[in-house]
Amino acid sequence: MSSQFGVLFRVATWGESHGGGVGVTIDGCPARIPLAPEDIQADLDRRRPGQSEIVTQRAEADRCEILSGVFEGRTLGTPIAVLVRNTDARPEAYREMEHAFRPSHADYTYQAKYGIRNWQGGGRSSARETIGRVAAGAVAKKVLRTHLPAFETVAFVQSVHRIEAQVDLGSVTGAQVEQSIVRCPDPEASEQMIALIKQMRKEGNSVGGVLSCVIRGVPPGLGEPVFDRLEADLAKAMLSLPATKGFEIGSGFAGCLITGAEHNDAFEMREGHVRTATNRSGGVQGGISNGEDIVFRVAFKPTATILRPQSTVNDQGQEVQLAARGRHDPCVLPRAVPMVEAMAALVLCDHWLRQRAQNMT
Amino acid sequence: MSSQFGVLFRVATWGESHGGGVGVTIDGCPARIPLAPEDIQADLDRRRPGQSEIVTQRAEADRCEILSGVFEGRTLGTPIAVLVRNTDARPEAYREMEHAFRPSHADYTYQAKYGIRNWQGGGRSSARETIGRVAAGAVAKKVLRTHLPAFETVAFVQSVHRIEAQVDLGSVTGAQVEQSIVRCPDPEASEQMIALIKQMRKEGNSVGGVLSCVIRGVPPGLGEPVFDRLEADLAKAMLSLPATKGFEIGSGFAGCLITGAEHNDAFEMREGHVRTATNRSGGVQGGISNGEDIVFRVAFKPTATILRPQSTVNDQGQEVQLAARGRHDPCVLPRAVPMVEAMAALVLCDHWLRQRAQNMT
Amino acid sequence: MSSQFGVLFRVATWGESHGGGVGVTIDGCPARIPLAPEDIQADLDRRRPGQSEIVTQRAEADRCEILSGVFEGRTLGTPIAVLVRNTDARPEAYREMEHAFRPSHADYTYQAKYGIRNWQGGGRSSARETIGRVAAGAVAKKVLRTHLPAFETVAFVQSVHRIEAQVDLGSVTGAQVEQSIVRCPDPEASEQMIALIKQMRKEGNSVGGVLSCVIRGVPPGLGEPVFDRLEADLAKAMLSLPATKGFEIGSGFAGCLITGAEHNDAFEMREGHVRTATNRSGGVQGGISNGEDIVFRVAFKPTATILRPQSTVNDQGQEVQLAARGRHDPCVLPRAVPMVEAMAALVLCDHWLRQRAQNMT
Amino acid sequence: MSSQFGVLFRVATWGESHGGGVGVTIDGCPARIPLAPEDIQADLDRRRPGQSEIVTQRAEADRCEILSGVFEGRTLGTPIAVLVRNTDARPEAYREMEHAFRPSHADYTYQAKYGIRNWQGGGRSSARETIGRVAAGAVAKKVLRTHLPAFETVAFVQSVHRIEAQVDLGSVTGAQVEQSIVRCPDPEASEQMIALIKQMRKEGNSVGGVLSCVIRGVPPGLGEPVFDRLEADLAKAMLSLPATKGFEIGSGFAGCLITGAEHNDAFEMREGHVRTATNRSGGVQGGISNGEDIVFRVAFKPTATILRPQSTVNDQGQEVQLAARGRHDPCVLPRAVPMVEAMAALVLCDHWLRQRAQNMT
Repeated sequence: MSSQFGVLFRVATWGESHGGGVGVTIDGCPARIPLAPEDIQADLDRRRPGQSEIVTQRAEADRCEILSGVFEGRTLGTPIAVLVRNTDARPEAYREMEHAFRPSHADYTYQAKYGIRNWQGGGRSSARETIGRVAAGAVAKKVLRTHLPAFETVAFVQSVHRIEAQVDLGSVTGAQVEQSIVRCPDPEASEQMIALIKQMRKEGNSVGGVLSCVIRGVPPGLGEPVFDRLEADLAKAMLSLPATKGFEIGSGFAGCLITGAEHNDAFEMREGHVRTATNRSGGVQGGISNGEDIVFRVAFKPTATILRPQSTVNDQGQEVQLAARGRHDPCVLPRAVPMVEAMAALVLCDHWLRQRAQNMT
Repeated sequence: MSSQFGVLFRVATWGESHGGGVGVTIDGCPARIPLAPEDIQADLDRRRPGQSEIVTQRAEADRCEILSGVFEGRTLGTPIAVLVRNTDARPEAYREMEHAFRPSHADYTYQAKYGIRNWQGGGRSSARETIGRVAAGAVAKKVLRTHLPAFETVAFVQSVHRIEAQVDLGSVTGAQVEQSIVRCPDPEASEQMIALIKQMRKEGNSVGGVLSCVIRGVPPGLGEPVFDRLEADLAKAMLSLPATKGFEIGSGFAGCLITGAEHNDAFEMREGHVRTATNRSGGVQGGISNGEDIVFRVAFKPTATILRPQSTVNDQGQEVQLAARGRHDPCVLPRAVPMVEAMAALVLCDHWLRQRAQNMT
Repeated sequence: MSSQFGVLFRVATWGESHGGGVGVTIDGCPARIPLAPEDIQADLDRRRPGQSEIVTQRAEADRCEILSGVFEGRTLGTPIAVLVRNTDARPEAYREMEHAFRPSHADYTYQAKYGIRNWQGGGRSSARETIGRVAAGAVAKKVLRTHLPAFETVAFVQSVHRIEAQVDLGSVTGAQVEQSIVRCPDPEASEQMIALIKQMRKEGNSVGGVLSCVIRGVPPGLGEPVFDRLEADLAKAMLSLPATKGFEIGSGFAGCLITGAEHNDAFEMREGHVRTATNRSGGVQGGISNGEDIVFRVAFKPTATILRPQSTVNDQGQEVQLAARGRHDPCVLPRAVPMVEAMAALVLCDHWLRQRAQNMT
Repeated sequence: MSSQFGVLFRVATWGESHGGGVGVTIDGCPARIPLAPEDIQADLDRRRPGQSEIVTQRAEADRCEILSGVFEGRTLGTPIAVLVRNTDARPEAYREMEHAFRPSHADYTYQAKYGIRNWQGGGRSSARETIGRVAAGAVAKKVLRTHLPAFETVAFVQSVHRIEAQVDLGSVTGAQVEQSIVRCPDPEASEQMIALIKQMRKEGNSVGGVLSCVIRGVPPGLGEPVFDRLEADLAKAMLSLPATKGFEIGSGFAGCLITGAEHNDAFEMREGHVRTATNRSGGVQGGISNGEDIVFRVAFKPTATILRPQSTVNDQGQEVQLAARGRHDPCVLPRAVPMVEAMAALVLCDHWLRQRAQNMT
């Protein structure tokens, strides 16, 4: 159960950092959607290590193989299995972690939970697990775009440490985001972020930051009352990504600082449609999309792996010092952009199918 | 599906604001847990309207009836159904909303989703739905305390609008919280909050704020890798509550402003246990509890119902003015405290059962 | 989990024989379906005790109350909660079973599983639990008939003990079935069955038999490959009913006695549709409906409650004699007819929604 | 959803007959269970084509690769992914089926459901899909045997066409079953069955039959009241296998022919345990195991693929004649034995985990 997501568009990931590979199975995908490995590879390339000088240098091409569910270029409606082999595994680089628990990593909690762990590269807690999510997200995007042509997700780096970007949510495009290796569409902030990340790498330190995401082209009516509210499922999706510490939608935490009279989004008619004059709701009201852009932000902590000696304990209960080796990202945000988009697409695709089931006319 | 929560401790709520009542069924509860209606009523009383001068004055005693699943004072292991009748329904007070959509409410989105809605008191989107959650949460607490005696959840009002409380997370108790009708354990801030809420009511306006919650007595090992991380399920649980806009765990959004060297929680041995020197992780690492207190915050927007004329549209696509009547809370936070605790207990109880299933020794 | 059924049209029953009552919540029902208590009551009346001289004489009117999910005569899309109070409870009649385990009942296994049981009237294992199923099935039928006007389920008693009815599956109607209190549409067999059941009652003995069910008006394409095949879900639905021992679809066990050349259903064109010349497949091929009538049979064992002394043991591990009191059915089949129809409707409604989600055009 | 099975021990299969391969992911497996590819391969070898002269001659070694979830010979608690490549694919042998629907196969229903199908070798409806089930079942057996040392499943061929075996359910062993290529432990019946199957192959015809299965070493208390009764989940598991038409547990359909006084299983004390004098219940009462052997039977129809011209229609709605080529089993029962055992193990393992979660002491 721990590795499944979605009710109708159900994805299940598997795999460890060091082992046969990682992958995903997608069950419930509508049939007859055009799908080629390239559709998936494009997003995997945005996620893969080694893509720029500010990310981890682990050399993985992350080429995907579609093992099932596609026939003559179209989906069959049956499970789509995607496999990515691990090729540049270096277990020996993690030998120090065989017994010592890395601070703010999952080593200790996995050991406490299971009584066993694959210490090579973090095992299942490695960010390599997100390959399956990004692959599935690419399929979800394809499905949604086929049926909702205006659908798109644009995530970008809003801030790194104290550097904050100025970005217009209404107009920002994926192409603008991709022009920067840090995936911040504000050129000035982008430069500062890149410089800071390089400095952190040099210092063996790390930084975090905030991602923004805008989802466009979602019709009114997606999302469920009560537990499976759209923002609840988005929050879960985002907080399920490694290194996340917070989620806010629309006005978010800042919305607490104004009164109801200031906060409410007045309805109005625009081009024959019910619209809101402002979007403090973030595109969701009562758990259900209202047709406005869905906008949210996700906080990522500074990478736990730092190249400095740290105090910790080992699996014998002894206090020890640990200095990480291994390759890592001094800042996870650039590579988190496709992950956030993928999870957003999974949530929307699932809710779109659920809405078709219950309320199609 | 929209009204169910949990994998093994599965709760399903039902009911609208105006109708036969509201309730919940709990499936999967362990057998032989002592349970009486009073166990549930205590938390319902903390949630009910009319409990103080700063909340809605709808007169509902919210007396619960346990219809099944309990025999001679102990749970049977079979579904526990709990019923609370609606008694003080005043549908006529909502007649204006029969056709006009209240801004930042769920009226429009329910109509868009279902093509029909119960406009009386907000129907299913009413906060009365949370009665079922609070009732189920009371049962979850009982289960957890029976097996994990140190388990407790303490939620409190951290801030209202710009008034911020000073509270020590390590020592705050539920009794302290309950001494204040606004449920803020900082007496000075509490007084200011109460005054502000009274002023808002007088002005027909509303305010929001932030709740903090600390969960104690959780052993290491609860939570699942990947999608069902403990913080992911907590985030979903909290964002599924009405009026929520954000969630953060441990260092949260502020954690983005420090570096990894500052952020990491060093492990150390204390009284023979692996502990962390700091708790920026918020009690969860890699999605799994590490034995430290679980600490998180939830943002609640200002109540959407304000007693002032607002611009909106009706179900004929006409722009109209709407002035709400009906009884409402000028600030939802005091009554949200038991809701947040209930949802936290549901998440923890479910994960505790999951851990028993897979990893008991 | 034990009390939930269905993926999208999800029903959850609750309640014990002696207690506050029994009921069901239906989550995921499409909106705007006309629904009144009478729609549900009609099927409950076919299930209720005391309806004829050959069934148990427990005096329960089984009047249902719809507590939520319906507004002005139409479904809201939100959970529909239905409550039926227990009124003629006589716990004292079961005092003998407080400690002794009735043979071939669930007393011992509930005790072994939970370490506790409600011994009054069988508690959760009572056939009263099926009230919730029949109520939910009535809603499912209403949904399906609204969208698939030709949909109908006709179940009837095929055999009691060694008395076998001759019934034409292609033409049998529900009205014909209801003309007989034993619900067998073959008048001659019906008379013999009634006589046998009366004799069994007089002797304090009981009999079982076989129900047949035909489902008409199902379009091709419902059901899923692999685990959620239509026949698999029907088998589970039927074997989840009390006292069932077997299920077969189409040619069933007898199909093993002919060769493939004799067994295969040749395809042909009829009135522009792909049809089969014979229907040994029973309306399902590869787990998916092919547009033919779905036909299956269910075996019900003789009622376990007999009014004769039987050897058993008690909860102290002592061998004792037990003579049942309490009211019971000498043959469960007449009242099982609406149960089988209800479960069939639940399966079909769920799969119809699933098909809409994935494969609507 | 269509390709997932189990609540806590959740398996998801994927793959088509002709494509990258077939496989399975197992989520929720307990940690620290010793597991090697050989544990899985042993059961795959009992399932694989070409194992004897009476089964299909498709040349597949069906070697499995464990891609994840195992570390240094023990399970990690994380998803176990297993891959088997397709090697002897001959799509050209199925060219006739590109447009014509094979009678009593899934060709037409897949086309009706999805509007597309992989016609090569039956695509997803091929029995190759069961490789994933058998692999997962092997893991389930390993888990159960680790914790319940007496657990075992013994399935065998009870009948082929009109040839019925005489087998003692109490003493039959897996080793006896494996001595016969038809997997019937009655040597005389086995010889007759083999002769009949060879004759059918020669005639281009096919036969079906009945499998029996006995499950030993199951403690009392597994299974859930109401919908997830043990026999309901077993029925679903078995009817989800290709070519199945019926399921019966304990006395089954024959139990309808005796009275309650004859049918009831009297309780008695044996060696300090509550036992039943007879086992017409088949090891399950009220949906829950009672500690006796669980015994059930499954009907398999004659193989739909026969090497004779048959009347059918094509995807243009034209009536045509079709003569199958391709390799096939003239009788599926010998290879179905490990499939039935695997599905039984999956059901039991899932319910054992569920029982641990709710009712461990």
